[in-house]
This record gives sequence, C-alpha cells and structure tokens, in this order.
Amino acid sequence: MAKRNGQTITLDKKIYINKYAAVGGKKEMEGPLGQFLDLTSEDNKFDQPTWEKSESKMQELAIKALIKKSGYSPSDIDIIFGGDLLNQCIGSSYGVRNLSIPFAGLYGACSTMALSLILATMSIESGFAKRSIGVTSSHFCSAERQFRFPLEYGSQRTENNQWTVTGSGAVLISKEKSDIYISRCALGKITDYNISDMNNMGAAMAPSAADTLLNFFKDTNTTEKDYDYIFTGDLGSVGKKLLITLMNAEGYNLENNYNDCGCIIYKSDDKDIKSGASGCGCSAVTLCTYILPKLQRGDFKKVIFMATGALMSPTSSQQGESIPGIAHLLVLEREE
Amino acid sequence: MAKRNGQTITLDKKIYINKYAAVGGKKEMEGPLGQFLDLTSEDNKFDQPTWEKSESKMQELAIKALIKKSGYSPSDIDIIFGGDLLNQCIGSSYGVRNLSIPFAGLYGACSTMALSLILATMSIESGFAKRSIGVTSSHFCSAERQFRFPLEYGSQRTENNQWTVTGSGAVLISKEKSDIYISRCALGKITDYNISDMNNMGAAMAPSAADTLLNFFKDTNTTEKDYDYIFTGDLGSVGKKLLITLMNAEGYNLENNYNDCGCIIYKSDDKDIKSGASGCGCSAVTLCTYILPKLQRGDFKKVIFMATGALMSPTSSQQGESIPGIAHLLVLEREE
Repeated sequence: MAKRNGQTITLDKKIYINKYAAVGGKKEMEGPLGQFLDLTSEDNKFDQPTWEKSESKMQELAIKALIKKSGYSPSDIDIIFGGDLLNQCIGSSYGVRNLSIPFAGLYGACSTMALSLILATMSIESGFAKRSIGVTSSHFCSAERQFRFPLEYGSQRTENNQWTVTGSGAVLISKEKSDIYISRCALGKITDYNISDMNNMGAAMAPSAADTLLNFFKDTNTTEKDYDYIFTGDLGSVGKKLLITLMNAEGYNLENNYNDCGCIIYKSDDKDIKSGASGCGCSAVTLCTYILPKLQRGDFKKVIFMATGALMSPTSSQQGESIPGIAHLLVLEREE
Repeated sequence: MAKRNGQTITLDKKIYINKYAAVGGKKEMEGPLGQFLDLTSEDNKFDQPTWEKSESKMQELAIKALIKKSGYSPSDIDIIFGGDLLNQCIGSSYGVRNLSIPFAGLYGACSTMALSLILATMSIESGFAKRSIGVTSSHFCSAERQFRFPLEYGSQRTENNQWTVTGSGAVLISKEKSDIYISRCALGKITDYNISDMNNMGAAMAPSAADTLLNFFKDTNTTEKDYDYIFTGDLGSVGKKLLITLMNAEGYNLENNYNDCGCIIYKSDDKDIKSGASGCGCSAVTLCTYILPKLQRGDFKKVIFMATGALMSPTSSQQGESIPGIAHLLVLEREE
C-alpha cells in the first residue's frame, strides 16, 4: 500500500507509464515538438463541423492511438480518467463515449493532466483497475469562444495572455513493467492570492505551484537538486518567473533545471503566443512529446511534473471573484 | 487489495462511511426530508449576493458541518473529491478553497455523488488517504440560469422537466469502524441512445442506469432480490418507469424495492416538480438525509446507490448532439 506523508504519496511498488500518445493542431505541428505528435490536422478541425466536436475528436484519436500502440483493445482498459476546459467537460464525454470503457470525469482546469495521472495511479494501486488511461484536451478555438470572444471578433491579446494549445495527450498506466515509472505524487490544495485579472492566469497559478512544491520538498526531505528537471504546466513566462522568485524566497533555486510546458511547446519567436501556451492540452502534449520521450531515452532519470490550474469561470470573474489556483505533482523516473 | 470482476470492484476489507451532512434550500426544507437537513436558508441565498456564490457556500457549509460532526479538524482530512454542475465546476472550487485540504475536482453531472464516493473509497483502499470526503452540490437558480433561462424570464416547464435541487451533501469515508460500510462499487460506461430532448433527461439517463445495473448483476451473480432497496438518482418519474421497463425486459423485477432520489426528496403533491427532482445535490441530499439514516437505524441492511448523469452541455445540444448518459454504483451495507 502507498504511504502518505503530509500531502505526498510514496508508492510502495512501482507503477508504470506503459505508452503515451498525443494529437495536436497546425501550430503545434509547426512547433519544436510537432515531429513527435501521433496525429495532426492541417485545419485544426479533425474532419468535424464545430470546434467543440473537433476537440472531442482529438481526445478520441489520442486514446485510440494510445491503445493501438500498446497492443491492447479497448476492452483491456479498465478506467479512463479524463477532463477538459469546456462547460460540462463535453470535450471528454463526447470524446470517450464510443469506447465503452468505464469513465471518471475530472475537472482541474489546466492541472487536469496531473490529476488524471494521479487518480489513474490510485486506481492501479488500489486494485480498482489493472490498466487505466489519463487523458485531457484543449482547443484554441473552443476555448477562445467560451472564455473570451469568438475568433471572428478579432479581439486584441495582452502581453500576459497565454495561447490555448489545440491538442490532446493520453497515457496508459499499469503495473506491467516498462521504461518509466511513477514513484511519488501529491494532490494540491486550492490557494487564492486575490489575483482577478483573467488575462494573467500565470500570476494566479504560480502561488499554487509554489505551495505544492514547497510542501512536497518538505514532505520528502528533498530539494530541486534531487531532480534532473522540474516541469510546470502551464504558468507561461510570467508565471514561471514568479514561481522562480517565490521559491527563491524560500531558499530553493529553480534557475538551472526548471521550465514550464507553456514555454516549450511553441517556437520561441512565434509572435501570437505572448506569455506562452496554456490549456489542458498543453501539459498533456508536452508530457507525451517531450518529457516522457526524454525519460525513455534516458536523457532524464528523475523529473517532477506539476500541472497547474486556474479554477475560475467567466461567470465567477464577472461576479468580481478572484482566481483560485491548484497544482498537482508527480515524480516520474527512468527504470534502471 | 480490491478485486475487479468485469466492471465491479469488491473491496477486500470494509471501508466505512463515518459521518454525513446535508444542506438544503427552502423547498428542500419543506419536503419530507427537510427535518434531517443540517442547515437551510429561508431565501436560498445562504447570505450570499449571487446564486453561484450561494451554491459554493452550501458546499462549504456541508463540509464544515460534516467535519464538525466527525470531531475532526480540516487538517485531519486528506482529500476532498468534489463536483457540481456549473461551468468549470465553480460550485466546488470556490466552496472548497478556504479549507486548505487537497482537492480532486470531478465532473459527472448528476452522477457526481456516486463518482466522488467511489474515488474516495479508492483513495482509502490505495493508502493515498486515511480520511476522504465526497461532496457535491446544485442550486435551482444557478442551474436554471445556466442550462435554461434566467428565473426572471418566467419560462414554462414541460411535464418531463425535472426540478434542480438546491442542496449539498458531504460524506466522510475511512477505514475507521462505523455503522455503514461500502462493500462494492462500479464505475459506469458512457452510453448514448440518441435522445436529444434537453427537457427529458430521465429518458437519456435510464439506459445508462440499466447498463451499469445489468453489468453489476452479472459481475456479482446477484439480482434485485439480494438487496433491500435500490436507489437511482436522478431519473425522475419518467426515467424511473423506463428503467423498470428496461430491466424487466432483461428478466429483473424492480417493481417492489426500487425508487429514484428524484421521486423522494419533494412532497408528492408539489406542482412545481413535474417529473421529479434532479441535480448533483439531489442524490447527495437524499443519500445523506434518507438512505444513510435508514441504513444506520437498521431499516435497511444492504442497498444499491446508483447516481446517473447526463453528460451534455447547452453548447452540445445547440450543435444537435444527442445526450450521453453515465451511471456509477455503490453497495452500502449496515455493519452487523
């Protein structure tokens, strides 16, 4: 049985990441990770008539690509843990509905990929499942329409804005031995530092990331030096700087081995991007096309993957509410 | 470790429901379960300026009442599994944010109470938590505004309409011995029988309930006769009749020991209600004010609690999509 100390769970026996798959749109294809995508769509529509249906299709394609790679069939998968940013999480429910696999719907905003992996790990550790999948998605066009303005409106973007990733990532987890395993994880607490600027999510989420990371370091008696690399997703460049500052004030130095998924997935000279990438799909795609491949190749031995979410809605913001944040963390290691 | 057969998990050692608490609005207070509510609000506002904030407040009050009853403090609780119907699940995130307890956000529409209890059970079984809380909420006024029309519009209700419960229920789960335990559970698959009438959710969800219940009976080699009572939530009277018919066609007779939470919570002569109650709060409040007290008093020895959800959004319906359903199931038993 897993052991809990503070917020941190240490797994008794290794639980493995067996396979992973990612689907992305045109801009994601043109970025530095594009060559590692399993599937893409030139017009971001994935043969669907609406942006919401395109997003669901991406989740379905990511899961199907994952199951195919693994050599299993859908009936070999016990539970899918999935979520997205859309109202009532329709990206996931319509994405998963044709697969006939038991489904647990999640909502953690952009932290959902880490949430899905932690709960999938829990399902294996408890015996509730033999094989589980964690999956998330986001789509630039469905997110813009829902959270900001329809694309046709042509609204201006601020310098602190982040660009929602069009993509989906899916990961298969089981006790079957593989190259990468999960050794520890921590579910975060909601924190709220009274940020209310919907165009500056990085600032709202950085304190949550600091909270989870500080508690994790204390619980495990480790520091940033014990990990080859630390990844957050998706603070963007504004939130990333803020997290470095916050951690520095507590005596930790993230200058050398830390980056944010929102600063990795797109070309660094892409002028659309502003403060970086975001969306449930950002950390999912970066995990499946960059972090996990690097672990598999042995470029990293031990990394922290911590996804962060801003738990607001347009309604809560219109009602003058601040933006609560959350960050969930996993330690991913290369099998010796 | 728990054992899985088909979709069904059988727990190796008993996991207990230690305490439970429920909060409800005026109509819920006036219904037959009103006397068992821990807290209410005459104007359904719970001292808040907006309906969304009122809903969050209900969740906070339900969790605080639960923790107080249990004799613990918030720091004794390891994980809260919570969800609601609002866009981006703000009912839960703003409800939980002041508690400083690790949080896993869920979305399962009206199935969320069963989903939260199953994942909370999983967290205990795996050692990820020593004590976990499952919680959900819904509010008539925030749901009407979001899914249908603002109350001020005074829209007409159809005969198949259900009335969204204003309420929240919270349940504490651990291995600490108590009067009620969870012996089995099953996460459902998404089913879609091409129902697209947003005013007839019962018809969309009944096939999902039948799917989960049939698989469960087969997995466990049991029938309706092995349980004192079976509760669904929230099919309403239309969906309830449909489930009885669907199960009858498969050789099971639900005429004698089955009811739906949506047909229990309000007075039977209340003309507002139409086809019954619904919302994440309906099965949560009925569980905490009726089903669990009856188990505790020994009126029931063994019941099935199966919450059902319609996984649509106004956007998916406007785009012509049908309504996928899901149903998650637990077996709750009285300790000898």
